[in-house]
Amino acid sequence: MSGYTAPLADMRFALAELGGLPQLNLLPGLRDATPDVVDAVLEEAARLAGEVLAPLNRPGDTAGSAVRDGQVASPPGFADAYRSFWQAGWPALPFPPERGGQGLPELVATAVNEIWQAANMSFALCPMLTEGAVVTLEQHAAKELQERYLPMLISGEWTATMNLTEPQAGSDLGAVKMRAEPRSDHFLLSGQKIFITWGDQDFTDNIVHLVLARLPDAPPGSRGLSLFLVPKFLVREDGSLGERNDVHPVSIEHKMGIHASPTCVMSYGDHGGAIGYLIGKPHDGLSCMFTMMNHARLAVGVQGLSISERAYQQARGYARERVQGQAAGFKGSVTIVHHPDIRRMLMIMKAGVEAMRGLCYTTAASLDYLRHAADDGLRRRHEQRFALLTPIVKGWCTELSQEITSLGLQVHGGMGYVEETGAAQHFRDARITTIYEGTTGIQAGDLVGRKLIRDGGRVMGILIAEMKQAADALLETRDAALAAVAKRLAAGVVALERATRWLLDHHAADASIPGAASVDYLMLAGTVCGAWQMARASLAVMQDGYDARLRQAKLVTARFYMEHLLPRSQAYFESIQAGHESIMALGEDQF
Amino acid sequence: MSGYTAPLADMRFALAELGGLPQLNLLPGLRDATPDVVDAVLEEAARLAGEVLAPLNRPGDTAGSAVRDGQVASPPGFADAYRSFWQAGWPALPFPPERGGQGLPELVATAVNEIWQAANMSFALCPMLTEGAVVTLEQHAAKELQERYLPMLISGEWTATMNLTEPQAGSDLGAVKMRAEPRSDHFLLSGQKIFITWGDQDFTDNIVHLVLARLPDAPPGSRGLSLFLVPKFLVREDGSLGERNDVHPVSIEHKMGIHASPTCVMSYGDHGGAIGYLIGKPHDGLSCMFTMMNHARLAVGVQGLSISERAYQQARGYARERVQGQAAGFKGSVTIVHHPDIRRMLMIMKAGVEAMRGLCYTTAASLDYLRHAADDGLRRRHEQRFALLTPIVKGWCTELSQEITSLGLQVHGGMGYVEETGAAQHFRDARITTIYEGTTGIQAGDLVGRKLIRDGGRVMGILIAEMKQAADALLETRDAALAAVAKRLAAGVVALERATRWLLDHHAADASIPGAASVDYLMLAGTVCGAWQMARASLAVMQDGYDARLRQAKLVTARFYMEHLLPRSQAYFESIQAGHESIMALGEDQF
Repeated sequence: MSGYTAPLADMRFALAELGGLPQLNLLPGLRDATPDVVDAVLEEAARLAGEVLAPLNRPGDTAGSAVRDGQVASPPGFADAYRSFWQAGWPALPFPPERGGQGLPELVATAVNEIWQAANMSFALCPMLTEGAVVTLEQHAAKELQERYLPMLISGEWTATMNLTEPQAGSDLGAVKMRAEPRSDHFLLSGQKIFITWGDQDFTDNIVHLVLARLPDAPPGSRGLSLFLVPKFLVREDGSLGERNDVHPVSIEHKMGIHASPTCVMSYGDHGGAIGYLIGKPHDGLSCMFTMMNHARLAVGVQGLSISERAYQQARGYARERVQGQAAGFKGSVTIVHHPDIRRMLMIMKAGVEAMRGLCYTTAASLDYLRHAADDGLRRRHEQRFALLTPIVKGWCTELSQEITSLGLQVHGGMGYVEETGAAQHFRDARITTIYEGTTGIQAGDLVGRKLIRDGGRVMGILIAEMKQAADALLETRDAALAAVAKRLAAGVVALERATRWLLDHHAADASIPGAASVDYLMLAGTVCGAWQMARASLAVMQDGYDARLRQAKLVTARFYMEHLLPRSQAYFESIQAGHESIMALGEDQF
Repeated sequence: MSGYTAPLADMRFALAELGGLPQLNLLPGLRDATPDVVDAVLEEAARLAGEVLAPLNRPGDTAGSAVRDGQVASPPGFADAYRSFWQAGWPALPFPPERGGQGLPELVATAVNEIWQAANMSFALCPMLTEGAVVTLEQHAAKELQERYLPMLISGEWTATMNLTEPQAGSDLGAVKMRAEPRSDHFLLSGQKIFITWGDQDFTDNIVHLVLARLPDAPPGSRGLSLFLVPKFLVREDGSLGERNDVHPVSIEHKMGIHASPTCVMSYGDHGGAIGYLIGKPHDGLSCMFTMMNHARLAVGVQGLSISERAYQQARGYARERVQGQAAGFKGSVTIVHHPDIRRMLMIMKAGVEAMRGLCYTTAASLDYLRHAADDGLRRRHEQRFALLTPIVKGWCTELSQEITSLGLQVHGGMGYVEETGAAQHFRDARITTIYEGTTGIQAGDLVGRKLIRDGGRVMGILIAEMKQAADALLETRDAALAAVAKRLAAGVVALERATRWLLDHHAADASIPGAASVDYLMLAGTVCGAWQMARASLAVMQDGYDARLRQAKLVTARFYMEHLLPRSQAYFESIQAGHESIMALGEDQF
């Protein structure tokens, strides 16, 4: 009951109809991503996830990681699983063939990532960060650094980490203090970083740390940060490993969840300085790190989807087996899946998962267009679309995963609170997702400040227009069920449009307004984008080739979303429109 | 930062203005509850909670309870704390003086319970259950049983448990299998009970178990259950302890939270049968147990309030100390309490706590009226009011506590996910409250089925009329701020009224309709009742005697509630009105 089976049918549907895989497959560089290849990839990933990674999820939670003799000891089975993982070529999936990658679209990599994160979120964090580091090095590192480090990271023989946070510098990276002193051909780093996911492990020969630090001549604040590559073991010119570098895990945090993933305090330079190499230009570290963070933000949004799917599968399994109480139309006791309130919870989970999947895949597809589209304008449009959707995916999917994993626990009743059942672990694991890679508040600030107000709502306006077109397309079918979906979607879009207008009109009136409204705006945008995906799915499933039973399921699920999740958009809108006054009026001592 | 200080000022305000303590104090039997006495009681409780119980909260979570040599070993310090607790007379607080109690109102006992639950929820569960057992024995047990057991339970020298659940009988108590065989002057019980809170402990000489079991001639289902008193040690006629009875803790659950509270599997009759005594009439056990459950349901609703207050205090403390980022109008870095989104979270916590407190106290006051009012009609009205509000208090306060404890964690950022901080414990502890003593779904079914549809909405109609009067009273003041509060309250009440009408009109059309709508209806009712309390507080604080600063705080908090929590009522209403179809349409295999 606590296993995981990748929902391949729904994933294929979402890849084709919402992510638009057939269209991506026409782009230069993505011609190999044929339906057959993608199917084979998904099936193989599903197998590894179901047979190897998912069974380690609960034991990994129980055993946890630990620091022993200055090294992280990972939970039993993880090192072997990681070896199977990289040797099968999974880390190389989305990278260009000329670098040793498999050249598959980010859309497909996102679907595969969904599988890893659902099977074992603690485990999957490790390759997720490595992938982000590869993208960062590809874009910003000098050729020599790329040649020395990229092949081993792309193959997954080594892993990578991102080192941002310090005790005084969390959301505010401008407060980073770590020092980097220039030497002949390298830098010497010293200081402490905290919250470093998979900062150390015992299953690869080397680890590559990407580290934000400050050069001696750096200006204060976030414009004085530079990015460095700091290997655990130095790498000689011939690629062989040299001395142990002066970077060490000091301890790991006792967290509420993702116990198997070691969250390390890392110490740099206790013995003279950790040797590091500059990535990109001096003082330009934050923009380099944003490459990694944006990549990770999409991936963490996918974690929200994945952990929700996992919780849904577990709750559904329990609801089908647990006998309790009576139901109208049945003799004797029934399985609880027959009780309306249990169904209501399962439907929120199912509808939420499908909406998130659609939005994650749609966003990932923009990443492919912005890289591979031949047309400049198309590339640019998708670059802007990706920038707009990333904080929504990260913020909304992870917030929704709190509710869905909580419902998964609730469906189990008292058994849900008992750890052996496994539902509690998903709930505990999910709880980190609204915090790391930028809290929901940080995502919302990015959305409202950088993505909405800065361009006067232009890119959001394009998205809103597209959502209206989707509603119109449903109405044009003259199908009553689709029309009902369309009508509700249109009402949600109007709420988003009015909220957008309100923010653009009022943000300058008081410095607190954007921050006061931002999380409600993000949740509104996510909720409406989810409805848009459900509407797109409803329209797509009407095509020939989809059977009546799937059609009914998609229509019912879309209708449920419109009736039970979308109505929240009005509440978000009302809160936005209420402004900042009641939020800001109390003195600090009145709390 | 992780301590707890009872919010005495706000508690006194809520006791006087929302619970109506001065009016209760006029009732026969409650004349001793003068303001001075109540103040002294609250201050003494606050002291014990702050100095003894709260400091054991985190160590208790870390150490947990365990079963050793067939006995539960409680966490270090708990036995001593319990001794201080009962020796100070706390368990006797709400019971009549003629039984050795202190004769204070349930309203005051509820406020004191708020303090215990906030200080240490795991600990406070033990006396909470004992209190419920006392009420049950008072109402249903024969005089001889009362005389032998009540004094020791009222004083707290012994504790009590409630034994309902069996592996196959959770929400559906009709499936209980435990057997009770009649002997000369007692019964022999055999079978297994699970999820027995404080089923055993090492700090009192005896424990009294109230146990649901089935007599040999019992009809099937819930009408064949009888209630028995089963002591851990038999009690001789002179009150001295006799032999160890045949009831034993087998193991305790590994739970996600409330680690210090041992949740036991209890085995009855492994060695021939546990000696038990019938409480009430044969086959009438469920109605006896409902006395205990209703008592416990109010108390668990209060847990939702308490754990939210605790989480709020912790988040507020962190927000005032943690320096991060910049804010408009301030030079350099600021404490995060200045950031609008942090304030928004703190305001949800603060407003939610105050609304819950008002509702819990109002409900507790009905318990006093139904016991002590001289007028039959008044007693009857409060009996019905209490029956209506109990599932709302239990369901809504505990659901809201999920959100509030989660926000408390979120305010801490990454530190919130680290167990040492303490925010995670509140979140984990809170998670049980929507499950035990009847899940939210069970509460909602009770509300819609027994409390609403059964009387055609009569009692709910009275409540709605009272809420409308509260809105009118605000409007009559001709104060602009109060009028704004009133207008929003009135809109919320209309939503509740329309939802009520819809349910009454449609419930008979399909057997699934009440169950499909029930949780949304409960949340709607709770949200609007919370607004009602905020409105009542706004009006009350306008009286002479309250200073301007408190007045401003109450008005801002009420306004915030209306702008940020109450808008959800429209979303609940829309979901209710959407009916059952999209919830029930999928086949079991389509999930």
